[in-house]
Amino acid sequence: MSKKNNQDKLIISALGGAGEIGKNMYMVQYANDIVIVDAGLKFPEEEMLGIDVVIPDITYLTENREKVRAILVTHGHEDHIGGLPYVLRQLNVPVYGMRLTLGLIENKLKEAGLLGETKRILIDPDSEIQFGTIKASFFRTNHSIPDSVGIALETPEGVVVHTGDFKFDHTPVNDRHADIQRMAEIGSRGVLALLSDSTNAERPGFTPSESSIGSEMTAIFRSAKQRVVVATFASNVHRIQQIIDAAAETRRKLTVIGRSMVNMVSIASELGYLNIPEGMLIEPEEVNKLPADRVAILSTGSQGEPMSALTRMARSTHRKVDILPGDTVIISANTIPGNERYVGRTVDELMRLGAHVIYGPGSVTGVHVSGHGSAEELKLMLNLMRPKFFIPIHGEYRMLRHHGLLAESVGIEKENIFLVDNGDTVEIQNGVARKAGKIPSGNVLIDGLGVGDVGNIVLRDRKLLSQDGILVVVVTLSKQDGAIMSGPDIISRGFVYVRESEGLLEEANRIVTGTLQKLMSENVNEWASLKTNVKDSLGRFLFEQTRRRPMILPIIMEV
Amino acid sequence: MSKKNNQDKLIISALGGAGEIGKNMYMVQYANDIVIVDAGLKFPEEEMLGIDVVIPDITYLTENREKVRAILVTHGHEDHIGGLPYVLRQLNVPVYGMRLTLGLIENKLKEAGLLGETKRILIDPDSEIQFGTIKASFFRTNHSIPDSVGIALETPEGVVVHTGDFKFDHTPVNDRHADIQRMAEIGSRGVLALLSDSTNAERPGFTPSESSIGSEMTAIFRSAKQRVVVATFASNVHRIQQIIDAAAETRRKLTVIGRSMVNMVSIASELGYLNIPEGMLIEPEEVNKLPADRVAILSTGSQGEPMSALTRMARSTHRKVDILPGDTVIISANTIPGNERYVGRTVDELMRLGAHVIYGPGSVTGVHVSGHGSAEELKLMLNLMRPKFFIPIHGEYRMLRHHGLLAESVGIEKENIFLVDNGDTVEIQNGVARKAGKIPSGNVLIDGLGVGDVGNIVLRDRKLLSQDGILVVVVTLSKQDGAIMSGPDIISRGFVYVRESEGLLEEANRIVTGTLQKLMSENVNEWASLKTNVKDSLGRFLFEQTRRRPMILPIIMEV
Repeated sequence: MSKKNNQDKLIISALGGAGEIGKNMYMVQYANDIVIVDAGLKFPEEEMLGIDVVIPDITYLTENREKVRAILVTHGHEDHIGGLPYVLRQLNVPVYGMRLTLGLIENKLKEAGLLGETKRILIDPDSEIQFGTIKASFFRTNHSIPDSVGIALETPEGVVVHTGDFKFDHTPVNDRHADIQRMAEIGSRGVLALLSDSTNAERPGFTPSESSIGSEMTAIFRSAKQRVVVATFASNVHRIQQIIDAAAETRRKLTVIGRSMVNMVSIASELGYLNIPEGMLIEPEEVNKLPADRVAILSTGSQGEPMSALTRMARSTHRKVDILPGDTVIISANTIPGNERYVGRTVDELMRLGAHVIYGPGSVTGVHVSGHGSAEELKLMLNLMRPKFFIPIHGEYRMLRHHGLLAESVGIEKENIFLVDNGDTVEIQNGVARKAGKIPSGNVLIDGLGVGDVGNIVLRDRKLLSQDGILVVVVTLSKQDGAIMSGPDIISRGFVYVRESEGLLEEANRIVTGTLQKLMSENVNEWASLKTNVKDSLGRFLFEQTRRRPMILPIIMEV
Repeated sequence: MSKKNNQDKLIISALGGAGEIGKNMYMVQYANDIVIVDAGLKFPEEEMLGIDVVIPDITYLTENREKVRAILVTHGHEDHIGGLPYVLRQLNVPVYGMRLTLGLIENKLKEAGLLGETKRILIDPDSEIQFGTIKASFFRTNHSIPDSVGIALETPEGVVVHTGDFKFDHTPVNDRHADIQRMAEIGSRGVLALLSDSTNAERPGFTPSESSIGSEMTAIFRSAKQRVVVATFASNVHRIQQIIDAAAETRRKLTVIGRSMVNMVSIASELGYLNIPEGMLIEPEEVNKLPADRVAILSTGSQGEPMSALTRMARSTHRKVDILPGDTVIISANTIPGNERYVGRTVDELMRLGAHVIYGPGSVTGVHVSGHGSAEELKLMLNLMRPKFFIPIHGEYRMLRHHGLLAESVGIEKENIFLVDNGDTVEIQNGVARKAGKIPSGNVLIDGLGVGDVGNIVLRDRKLLSQDGILVVVVTLSKQDGAIMSGPDIISRGFVYVRESEGLLEEANRIVTGTLQKLMSENVNEWASLKTNVKDSLGRFLFEQTRRRPMILPIIMEV
């Protein structure tokens, strides 16, 4: 361990993932060494109109770029790796990950054209890497994707443990047990601060084992008289394995549809994370040539996403595969909050096509278990690690709050529990921890190729436009005397369909003309003034007539 | 009973509420008599940008207006009465309802200025009313609002029963028992067709009694060290009664905030549906003068609605009441699908203010029970009514489907079960039922004062505008030779904030100028052609540069 300088502080912060689910990015800094854990993306909120994805604001890191040593990635989910292409463009540091994690990262970097420039280093659970004053070691965890790890960061001030996303699954699929012994060992050598996954902190009890799905899945496959379609998260390789096993048990061939599912099955089987019996996989076009009870289809679309394979099948718009009456469709996933209507709609459409649909909450009826630990498992982690200080992460505020209460219940002192937001820092020096100042943090919005150029004004305008549309009022004035040479012309979009509302637009025209003439007679001719008056009078008129407030855009041309 | 003419048919249809939750409106027609059951509204889907509410398309009724005898209203929820102001403007027929139902309807008609013109007739469970060949009688049901009834419509072909919304609550609050004996009697005299509430058809078992809330609520009030805030549905008068009872038991004064809650408490207590102890109600301003443990606040906002009282308190923007650390907040409602993120956000904000929040799924933890019957109760209704034909209503397709399966399980013949969409008709003649043709039906969108004038094109444009904004390209051409006299000027809204992207807009300007000059040199001067070319060249450029597709609106002025 490096010699400790009493002036140096240990600084822990979240740039994403604290107070939200998504765009995880955490920072541990000691002296002049910064180690980053994860670099994820988040999907836009409803209000972020037209936005594709959201990534963390890494101003602090770019301003301290000479200190940033590495990005350690706990596992390959989008909310932990999705921000990498954007982050690496601003900050080219080495990326460390387990085999499947790196495989997924490489796929992403290839698509972004960054593969050649990024240094990627393969780790395994026994790796130990020194980054200046910080030494990183790892421990295997259970999660809904293979190769997930937690990280122990040893600093002169003490050990900081980051759990990554985890559950405790005592009967994991493919026997990939978590390193409970190593966790206990780390805990017994002394953990200064623990950052732990709060996703299911509100849920009492234990999350059931992934293996509990297997027999349920096989039973459904067995009793299905015709074809079986299963939609699940492409990243859940263990679930995919059990679907493959169920197909094998019931002598069904399997086809895979949906781009992300095809990608994942390909990468995972190449790297040895999926055992697919020889000859089981077939192309989508071949399913129609087989008897219905010899066919299984693995698909994207468990969230009712509009362009996903299952949704297109439900709407009979998939180019290669249809849903036939008598098919059994299993939605093997929970519904992420916000997606309830989409999933409901997809279930309705599948049922109308005559499918027997298995969906809904509950691990039995919905054939799904979570990848995150519930309250008892979170307490188990706390007791394995026995940290002095506790910082719940990876959750919205109420989840962090509940996790804090769990920590209190196992004996962590209340004043040693820190509920943080992105940008908050926890400083630990000489064994004393406190919430210190804030570092820059926030959302960077990605829209098309633009990174961070869509700000609040643009979003506000999109919101206004989406509610009541826009009225463009164009008039051409004479340079000499300001007389109206052409117009006013009023063109609307998203307001009222012109043909039905001609009376309204004619009246609007008169109002604009009247306003302009009045101002001109008063010798008012600064454009700003003309535009403001037109906006006011026209806006007032339209609201009186329609109770709507379209955006009004007056444009003055001069000749 | 009227003499049956063998040529006459019984026609049953849904104009709203079949295949959806909301805008309930059902129609029973025999010969030249049409009786309507309910006239509700629905809140807009996410895609219906800028739309306020959705009501049923009643073209069939206006085209047959001389046959429409009455609108019978089963209960006072918005999805059963909210469409009345719009419907009655097109179709002035008498409205029949129980006392509280009429009270709420009158409030609505007053706001719409229709009170004087509408004939409103008070009914009670013993009323029998003849509408030509159709005789209506009623039976009390249990629901999450008092005075809910089901309706039996006796026609020469047979009796059609409409359940309204219902559950079976054997220990109802305020002892308002359902008329089970009457239901049994109706069933034993023979029911031809049953239309029944499918909302909770997917839920096995029974819905717990409303009374089960009472002791839970009182226990929370008792253990709350400071103030108690309860947010619930304004329409749930029984819930409000139990909140009042809990406040009384714990010697707390009660204030009511939120417009719809204030209205409901006022109407319900005036009409005798709420027992409020003398002196219990206080004004919001007075809460700060009392000790915290002597205060209870009843509020709107259980769905995290942006302008509701609870949401404003959570954001510290309510003019009269704040949330204080140590307050207990109870969200006594289920979260309607689609509102999960809003409720989650509100819970987070309340917790950040230091409140202890009780929320979440489950009748115990969330202090809520549904007002709709689960599977066992739906089967009970089927067995009480023992209909020959069954038409499940008030539900999305999967709910109707499940309800149909429940009907099969109790012995209804599969071919006698009709899963209908809005506009489908079921015709029954001489004891034989069949799905016949469709009548006009659909959504009428209300936006501001406009009824039905916002169509697909306007919605599509609002969607485009919300995604990538708009670019307006204005140019003034000479009438004589088509030369450019002014412009092109490019103004954007919701696209990129001009100051940051000047290079882009200058380039865009050059592209437009170039396109126009090229066309002019080729002697192309029809405006349609000029505009299309500008749209194409500019659109292509912007997509290449930004991967965004703003709406492009070229405007040509002539001088």
